[in-house]
Amino acid sequence: MYKIGIDMMGGDYAPTQAALGVQAYLLQQVTGTCIYAIGDATILNTLLPNLNPTHCVIVPSHSVIAMKEHPTKAFKEKQDSSIAIGFKMLKEGTIDAFISAGNTGAMLVGTHFSIKTIPGVLRPAIGAVFPRLDGSTGLLCDVGLNADCKPEHLNQFAVLGSAFAHTMLQQHKPTVGLLNIGEEEGKGNQLAQDSYALLKQNPSIHFIGNIEGRDVYDSKATVMVCDGFTGNIVLKMAEQLYEIAQQRNIKDDFLDKCHFETYGGSPLLGVSKPVIIGHGISQQKAFVNMITLAAKMLETNVLGNIENSFKAI
Amino acid sequence: MYKIGIDMMGGDYAPTQAALGVQAYLLQQVTGTCIYAIGDATILNTLLPNLNPTHCVIVPSHSVIAMKEHPTKAFKEKQDSSIAIGFKMLKEGTIDAFISAGNTGAMLVGTHFSIKTIPGVLRPAIGAVFPRLDGSTGLLCDVGLNADCKPEHLNQFAVLGSAFAHTMLQQHKPTVGLLNIGEEEGKGNQLAQDSYALLKQNPSIHFIGNIEGRDVYDSKATVMVCDGFTGNIVLKMAEQLYEIAQQRNIKDDFLDKCHFETYGGSPLLGVSKPVIIGHGISQQKAFVNMITLAAKMLETNVLGNIENSFKAI
Repeated sequence: MYKIGIDMMGGDYAPTQAALGVQAYLLQQVTGTCIYAIGDATILNTLLPNLNPTHCVIVPSHSVIAMKEHPTKAFKEKQDSSIAIGFKMLKEGTIDAFISAGNTGAMLVGTHFSIKTIPGVLRPAIGAVFPRLDGSTGLLCDVGLNADCKPEHLNQFAVLGSAFAHTMLQQHKPTVGLLNIGEEEGKGNQLAQDSYALLKQNPSIHFIGNIEGRDVYDSKATVMVCDGFTGNIVLKMAEQLYEIAQQRNIKDDFLDKCHFETYGGSPLLGVSKPVIIGHGISQQKAFVNMITLAAKMLETNVLGNIENSFKAI
Repeated sequence: MYKIGIDMMGGDYAPTQAALGVQAYLLQQVTGTCIYAIGDATILNTLLPNLNPTHCVIVPSHSVIAMKEHPTKAFKEKQDSSIAIGFKMLKEGTIDAFISAGNTGAMLVGTHFSIKTIPGVLRPAIGAVFPRLDGSTGLLCDVGLNADCKPEHLNQFAVLGSAFAHTMLQQHKPTVGLLNIGEEEGKGNQLAQDSYALLKQNPSIHFIGNIEGRDVYDSKATVMVCDGFTGNIVLKMAEQLYEIAQQRNIKDDFLDKCHFETYGGSPLLGVSKPVIIGHGISQQKAFVNMITLAAKMLETNVLGNIENSFKAI
């Protein structure tokens, strides 16, 4: 039985949308998972009545880390908050994975203080699953955790992303592309040039060379690596395709898939337990998909595979 | 009479599409401009018969710098090439502006060797005009010339872009946004953080703070500044919207406008004469729009305004 913890108080529409998400997930009658809904017990007992404790348990918390609070300060001072309790449970093994659409900074602080980085990983990174025009999915990494990177970080993002793509996206030999501003070796800023040299020599990945902004929506590379500054801008532009479709009343499956809710949230890669970071504006569907993602990460043992990838280096 | 030079031999569809572009432009019977079509005279005399020398003159060249050639080497060795002749004419004042869809590197080398940087400008940059969802246009700068930047460069791109937007996009007080990964001051990589500090104190621009990837298609800031690495990836992603529309048979005015041909080419900003860099895949419409852009840059004296902006600093 996989125990998945959710911060019910995080995000702009908490706890209502988180509760709707939990309910919708439970209606799927997925066996093998139990939800630990962490939040204000009085409210949650109303929003989630008649729970079967085999499938969902309410864990009371007594404060909330707000979106704008200073992450480190808030995390230390609010030990009875839903995020702090979630990480305490993750650390102790009461839950196996933790999800929140709340203060991202506090999620990172919590991760840092509570669970280990996988041995060999220099810096964890956030991966984002991307829809492609051909119907496949790719992974962009990092999408915001590491605004300034060194070449060895990008080289590791390629390993993290490849292990994720292999296990979670069912890609036997996931290709890796370096997001750059030209196809040829030698193109790009200093980081890209130096990263290319490392990626080219990395025997544990299938490096295909540089990809460009125009390749993000196609399938040239399954795993696209870049620094977190570039990745965050690319991710937010891509997510905007859904908004464009909405604003302009365009009906199109691909543009619809660009909505972040399709994937729910982004996994933090390189740490020893599944931590999933949701958008502040997450609603029901996003919560369902974050729970589904966490369950899949546990079932497939993707973190064990990442650990093995780093042992092999 | 403004004299506009065009490299007829540059780009994947040269010289046919360049010639079709010149013909289409001439059919508009715009007064006040004369086209100097630089290329293989035999071919051009066939493609452009019965020219009225008041409106178009063929300038013979005897070699071509290919797309894959080393820019500096090729420019020095092929002094009879269409690009080298174009820059010689620009330097001597035989033409007032120069356009090419050929080897971008050679265009930059030519610019560097032939014409001056505007006094005070540390590094020229490439600006790209961007369509917005509300029907307005914005400018992204730099989109690829400076892959690695310092904060003072981004601060100058803001000045270059503001002068361009004021004159060419008819924005009285163009707003400037720093492309970043969060709204608040203090967000971003080191470059963004340090650039924010300079932009905030720059009295010659109207800085509104950070913008994010999701704001690229809206109108938060008219001028969006970033390093050339980020800008190039953003530009190529945005241009891909047109390709998505084509591939998925979506009929939409905004997505159509994302086609690079709508703007034709990108002006090199910060140099003393108009130099316009076109896509290698430019066809008729792109050439027409590049000529139109060059003519407008001359008519509005945008470069004089940029020069004044730097005098005022």
